[in-house]
Amino acid sequence: MNAPAELAAHLLPRPVPPEMLAALQEHFGARCSTARAVREQHGRDESPFDAPPPDAVVFCESTADVAAAVALAQAHGVPVIPFGVGSSLEGALLAVQGGLSLDLSRMNQVLRIEPEDLTVTVQAGVTRKQLNEAIRHEGLFFPIDPGADASLGGMAATRASGTNAVRYGTMKDNVLGLTVVTAAGEVVHTGSRARKSSAGYDLTRLFVGSEGTLGVMTEITLKLYPLPEAISAAVCHFPSIDAAVRTTIQLIQLGVPIARCELLDVNAIRALNAHDHLGLRESPMLLMEFHGSPVSVKEQAETVEGIAADFGGEGFEWATTPEARTKLWTARHHAYFSALQTRPGCRCVTTDTCVPISRLAECIQETVAEVDASGLPHFIVGHVGDGNFHVGYLIDPTLPQERETAERLNAQLVARALRMEGTCTGEHGIGLHKMGFLIDEAGAGGVALMRDIKRALDPKNIMNPGKIFAL
Amino acid sequence: MNAPAELAAHLLPRPVPPEMLAALQEHFGARCSTARAVREQHGRDESPFDAPPPDAVVFCESTADVAAAVALAQAHGVPVIPFGVGSSLEGALLAVQGGLSLDLSRMNQVLRIEPEDLTVTVQAGVTRKQLNEAIRHEGLFFPIDPGADASLGGMAATRASGTNAVRYGTMKDNVLGLTVVTAAGEVVHTGSRARKSSAGYDLTRLFVGSEGTLGVMTEITLKLYPLPEAISAAVCHFPSIDAAVRTTIQLIQLGVPIARCELLDVNAIRALNAHDHLGLRESPMLLMEFHGSPVSVKEQAETVEGIAADFGGEGFEWATTPEARTKLWTARHHAYFSALQTRPGCRCVTTDTCVPISRLAECIQETVAEVDASGLPHFIVGHVGDGNFHVGYLIDPTLPQERETAERLNAQLVARALRMEGTCTGEHGIGLHKMGFLIDEAGAGGVALMRDIKRALDPKNIMNPGKIFAL
Repeated sequence: MNAPAELAAHLLPRPVPPEMLAALQEHFGARCSTARAVREQHGRDESPFDAPPPDAVVFCESTADVAAAVALAQAHGVPVIPFGVGSSLEGALLAVQGGLSLDLSRMNQVLRIEPEDLTVTVQAGVTRKQLNEAIRHEGLFFPIDPGADASLGGMAATRASGTNAVRYGTMKDNVLGLTVVTAAGEVVHTGSRARKSSAGYDLTRLFVGSEGTLGVMTEITLKLYPLPEAISAAVCHFPSIDAAVRTTIQLIQLGVPIARCELLDVNAIRALNAHDHLGLRESPMLLMEFHGSPVSVKEQAETVEGIAADFGGEGFEWATTPEARTKLWTARHHAYFSALQTRPGCRCVTTDTCVPISRLAECIQETVAEVDASGLPHFIVGHVGDGNFHVGYLIDPTLPQERETAERLNAQLVARALRMEGTCTGEHGIGLHKMGFLIDEAGAGGVALMRDIKRALDPKNIMNPGKIFAL
Repeated sequence: MNAPAELAAHLLPRPVPPEMLAALQEHFGARCSTARAVREQHGRDESPFDAPPPDAVVFCESTADVAAAVALAQAHGVPVIPFGVGSSLEGALLAVQGGLSLDLSRMNQVLRIEPEDLTVTVQAGVTRKQLNEAIRHEGLFFPIDPGADASLGGMAATRASGTNAVRYGTMKDNVLGLTVVTAAGEVVHTGSRARKSSAGYDLTRLFVGSEGTLGVMTEITLKLYPLPEAISAAVCHFPSIDAAVRTTIQLIQLGVPIARCELLDVNAIRALNAHDHLGLRESPMLLMEFHGSPVSVKEQAETVEGIAADFGGEGFEWATTPEARTKLWTARHHAYFSALQTRPGCRCVTTDTCVPISRLAECIQETVAEVDASGLPHFIVGHVGDGNFHVGYLIDPTLPQERETAERLNAQLVARALRMEGTCTGEHGIGLHKMGFLIDEAGAGGVALMRDIKRALDPKNIMNPGKIFAL
């Protein structure tokens, strides 16, 4: 069940040869490292998988740096793996064939804020928190918020979303344009600062979600939003997960423009209480947020309170101050790390299915029954307004049967989601972990098209090879 | 300046050979036609360009029909051009190398409405009005509305938008999944019914906007929206186009969730008054619509009235009944055809630039000065909330100098929009007409990537060849 190790066994290493290393050292000086600690830090991510580290790491500071490194890799047929903050959950960063890790964390400049157009251009290493700090004084915010403080480049590469996607969409909806270094080491610009365009193939959306396998995104132009006039957050407790999910389904079907609608199960709440001292009641909970004018926020909240009451929701607690709201959402973003701490030494196998909202209650109910029966420590959090939820299995990495159980449960959940016309991954990407599931989901024909595109844009297969699909 | 004719001169005809025609006739019977009138009807669109008609037309009734026709075309290396209702404005449907027109208008079944998930699956020949008729009883609507009653397949192929895009996005944002017949004649499904996914390359958005050059979309799964609880439409008159545009810019920057915000110049209003007997005042006008709860609609309307007043907007007239609203919007959708009737026998050269909203006033102002100076009959309508506007030049097709003037003005406008970081086409596509502009906009590198993708997915170049870019 250790898919990456199995896969890696079929892939030949393509190490950085000495002459390429010399050229890298000449270009990058001390910004090119082969130190074991540096390579190991760039050879793992938040996935539960292990792989050998890359052969070298270069710290890029510009698009020109990236182009220079990729051109060398192209000349030598060596893999190139872009690295932001290392928060992939699916092994997208693992150097399964060795090669070069391109660390983009020093490309952390917010290049250009255009408040009148509600756009910003950033280097790919800027993180979501850094971006929001930089634009807050303009009265603007960027809504996409995966659990980690990920880089915008990594978020674009995995088509990330988070808690606000139910209202503001995902990275697919919020990237206007890109600067990309192609596999040939050439610099290409996609999109524009216009809000819409019908100008040829949608290269922007082809790169968004391609997990570094088609090119390296170095600069990203994003949509921004005015900070809402009024914001109100609330928690509401339910007698069961099912009741919380049915409340969500109804408010989505009614078209309530809720900004965030998050499910937390009892295990997740316990972890948050322990980590963030929230003192939340230990029953299934929705954590919600409403954005709009004061009147509209009040109206949305009243509608949702009414629906929740019909399903036994109670104990509505409103977070009215920015501090109280920030405390709640910071805790929510800590859910993954808080849960990890409930079982010292554990690794987490995370599921990421997303189903049509009408099937969500059934999907979660069947899954919970299966997971509870397994006895494996776990927690559930969900962007349920989108039909997306995560089961995190906290496995002891020294016990192979725990990983096997987690992977079996994950496979069963994915099969269920696909039967329900959903997807194996709502926001984490395929990486190494879900390559088999992608074939189930997209079909052999769909994956064949992806392979054709990959071969056309990266004939030597140097861009993050071994990810998304096998060639 | 007759770009298509020039282009066609470099392209060799690839006619349907007799043995392929025989095979088509065997499969399609009377649904395969070589009658001159049928071919000519499929050999023109709403663009001002002329080209020889296709060699044959087949009327497809299923994905299997499309697959059979494409497989034959693939075997014989013959062009295939999907045809919906023929409303392309850019020559996307012209058979510049001859070949086979695939008429999809009989694929007009609404296959599956899932009101609980706010999704619908249609065959590609269903038109936008037909779809809205079919879902209205569920309390749902589909917002994308190009001027023509286009087919959903054609709308997906050109990444269309229309008057509601400022709030509901474009076809890119509203297609969840596709059934596509590839150039090899294989049937592939993309996407799912989940609201979001990170599962591999975004094939859905690669096909959306590809203008039939990568495959034939035969079935489309779309997002739907609950009919708003309250809807209110209004017209407001301004002392100048500039005042109307500045009102728009401010309301967008404030984040007012306006559903529609359309500019009409005096020439457009005169045409509508003549065609639809609206009796509108002949001064630059915004035609707006607000969607939401009664309270929210009232609030939005008050905000916008206040902004408009600051720019001299007056004569706010509210259309409160559905009938009055329908009359206004039907007239707006007739703008193109109404304008054509103001100059009998004319053809229309339509521009489609879209710029960041902060540059919109400047862009329109410079354009109006230039256009007025030209003396060419014209009108301006704009989805100004998106930064997108159309100048329609009404040219006498027997006077080459008029076409030349229109094309020169169009080229100047595109150059202006690109300088302002916009796009040459917000919603009409590249077709034949804007191939040169695409190179200016996407750069040689961007177009090279598009060509690589095209060659990978359609090695024999049979899918609507000669469009978007030259190979």
